Amino acid sequence: MDKPTTQTVSVLVTPPYDVYVGTGLLNCIANHVAHKEIIILADVHTADYANTVAAGFRATDRRPLIIIVEPGERSKSIGSWEKVLEDISRAKITRSAALIAVGGGVVGDLGGYVAASYLRGIDFYQVPTTVLSMVDASVGGKTGLNLATGKNLVGAFHQPQAVFADVNVLATLPRAEFQSGTTELFKAGLIADYALAEHLLTYWSQFTTTDVVCDYLVQGIRVKADIVAIDPLERGPRAFLNLGHTLAHAIEAATQHAVPHGVAVAYGLYFAAELGAQRGLFDYRALTSSFLAWLDVSYDLPNFETLIPFLERDKKAGPDGRKYVLLAEKDSPVLVDDVRLEEELKAYAALQEVVS
Amino acid sequence: MDKPTTQTVSVLVTPPYDVYVGTGLLNCIANHVAHKEIIILADVHTADYANTVAAGFRATDRRPLIIIVEPGERSKSIGSWEKVLEDISRAKITRSAALIAVGGGVVGDLGGYVAASYLRGIDFYQVPTTVLSMVDASVGGKTGLNLATGKNLVGAFHQPQAVFADVNVLATLPRAEFQSGTTELFKAGLIADYALAEHLLTYWSQFTTTDVVCDYLVQGIRVKADIVAIDPLERGPRAFLNLGHTLAHAIEAATQHAVPHGVAVAYGLYFAAELGAQRGLFDYRALTSSFLAWLDVSYDLPNFETLIPFLERDKKAGPDGRKYVLLAEKDSPVLVDDVRLEEELKAYAALQEVVS
Repeated sequence: MDKPTTQTVSVLVTPPYDVYVGTGLLNCIANHVAHKEIIILADVHTADYANTVAAGFRATDRRPLIIIVEPGERSKSIGSWEKVLEDISRAKITRSAALIAVGGGVVGDLGGYVAASYLRGIDFYQVPTTVLSMVDASVGGKTGLNLATGKNLVGAFHQPQAVFADVNVLATLPRAEFQSGTTELFKAGLIADYALAEHLLTYWSQFTTTDVVCDYLVQGIRVKADIVAIDPLERGPRAFLNLGHTLAHAIEAATQHAVPHGVAVAYGLYFAAELGAQRGLFDYRALTSSFLAWLDVSYDLPNFETLIPFLERDKKAGPDGRKYVLLAEKDSPVLVDDVRLEEELKAYAALQEVVS
Repeated sequence: MDKPTTQTVSVLVTPPYDVYVGTGLLNCIANHVAHKEIIILADVHTADYANTVAAGFRATDRRPLIIIVEPGERSKSIGSWEKVLEDISRAKITRSAALIAVGGGVVGDLGGYVAASYLRGIDFYQVPTTVLSMVDASVGGKTGLNLATGKNLVGAFHQPQAVFADVNVLATLPRAEFQSGTTELFKAGLIADYALAEHLLTYWSQFTTTDVVCDYLVQGIRVKADIVAIDPLERGPRAFLNLGHTLAHAIEAATQHAVPHGVAVAYGLYFAAELGAQRGLFDYRALTSSFLAWLDVSYDLPNFETLIPFLERDKKAGPDGRKYVLLAEKDSPVLVDDVRLEEELKAYAALQEVVS
């Protein structure tokens, strides 16, 4: 991109690709994407951004196929995916096409998996429109759908050709969603850049210029990009990115996604902090409890018993015991696979105390 | 495999894998596959073979999950795929599992795509039980499902860890299906080993020993393996394997698969021979017409007009005209993308003459 204020994070997978972070990027995408056949996928909340992107293509004599899906987790279903695939095939799109997903994590995951599977794979671009999807979902090539039996059980690794994170779109993001997305930034800090986690609340809540937002986003994206580059298929250290997510996925599933992802992860981060503290590992409960207070949301937590079936179905369940990512030391995550039910119950009780 | 008569073809993709061709392989698979968690997918026609394979695992203290699907093309649907995925996830299978597909092309394509997509990919083994799937479908990593709008429009490249082609299972294959599968062997010869195509009918129809079958299968598999190795993702020469398939897919779709794949491809091969001869390219109509006579089957061909919508939906349609693989010279296929409707109509009329 030739905008002077745009920052770039390179994700060194095969083939490598760039994440652009800046302002006014939506208007530049058509200049960057050379494909003749273009599909733009969005939901009703991001349809306006999709139209902005589409206008760029029309100005260069291309007629993108625009597909709008329902917002929310229910679009991460096999039914939605099949419908989009049929729309694309009816439009006689060939495998030379590119699909551009304009939206949050749901649109990105759905669009990514459509691109991974249509004619066994077409090119893919991500235009994340939430903090959550900028920092997390749009980097790393994970795409996925939910089954009736659990979240993200179906999918593929399909790396994008490029990611365009235009921070202008964050201005219209509901405050609750903006805060919730911040959780993934906080998590990135906990895993690999503790100073980021410590300073985030101070500066992030006070920022008034997009430069500050861009700087923090770039730091968070870099944490993820570094991990993805050394482990693109999640065979090893990439699992560390799941800090807080084992419990979070169970809470989301058990509450039918009444608890937003970012909030569920924040609960999961505190739960993991408790599990670690019980074992004498690095104690970051205070910082995480400040983060929960800063989030300033409170949902009824389900009983732990109702979470167990979902924890058991989680792909991070091992044959010998429950697997969790914990922090052994500052910036030093570790994967343990022997967490007993008593430990879980104690940590969950502590979480309930903090949240109530 | 340690059976002395087993032949091996290495497929040099990343990572490379071997296709074993021989007798009595079904009983050896459990020794070769070290995974603790095993899923065996079969259809009602191949359930006995699946049980033979499963017995080997039980003898080594593993309890495979056996899933049996309906036979036939309708199991290559998103609905069947979703059902298998839900069965697997309900059994709490983790990503350390291996899926073994025991059956023809449908079971292989369905099983391969389940393996490609469950938890974003688990290990996969193929046990092809038809000539067609031994020579073609089980080599190369293509997996796929049909949409209402066309065949194989959804899928992934997911290479197997190994392929076990046990020719003993061909003894129970219906004669028509055995002959139909021979078409892919014939096609392999046309593309890259003309002597194979010329001699096939003489020896293949007379064989009495499995050694002859194994030898021809190995030759056919080697043609495909060589092409797949230089073009694993079908960006170039792998398209040559589609000789005869553009028309074949349209005939199958237009007749709701009343015409079996091998027969449809044989029609497509003659059609391509005619298109080439019209353009003064290599003329192999006589050999192909002998092959059609040898197949000794005759289906009502649809009117060409009814095929056009399916030809247009085919992923091998380019923006400038219809794409076909033709033979420029002996063993020298070429991809053309400017075939006009008049040429198609003339070639199709010639095919109708030969078939009637």
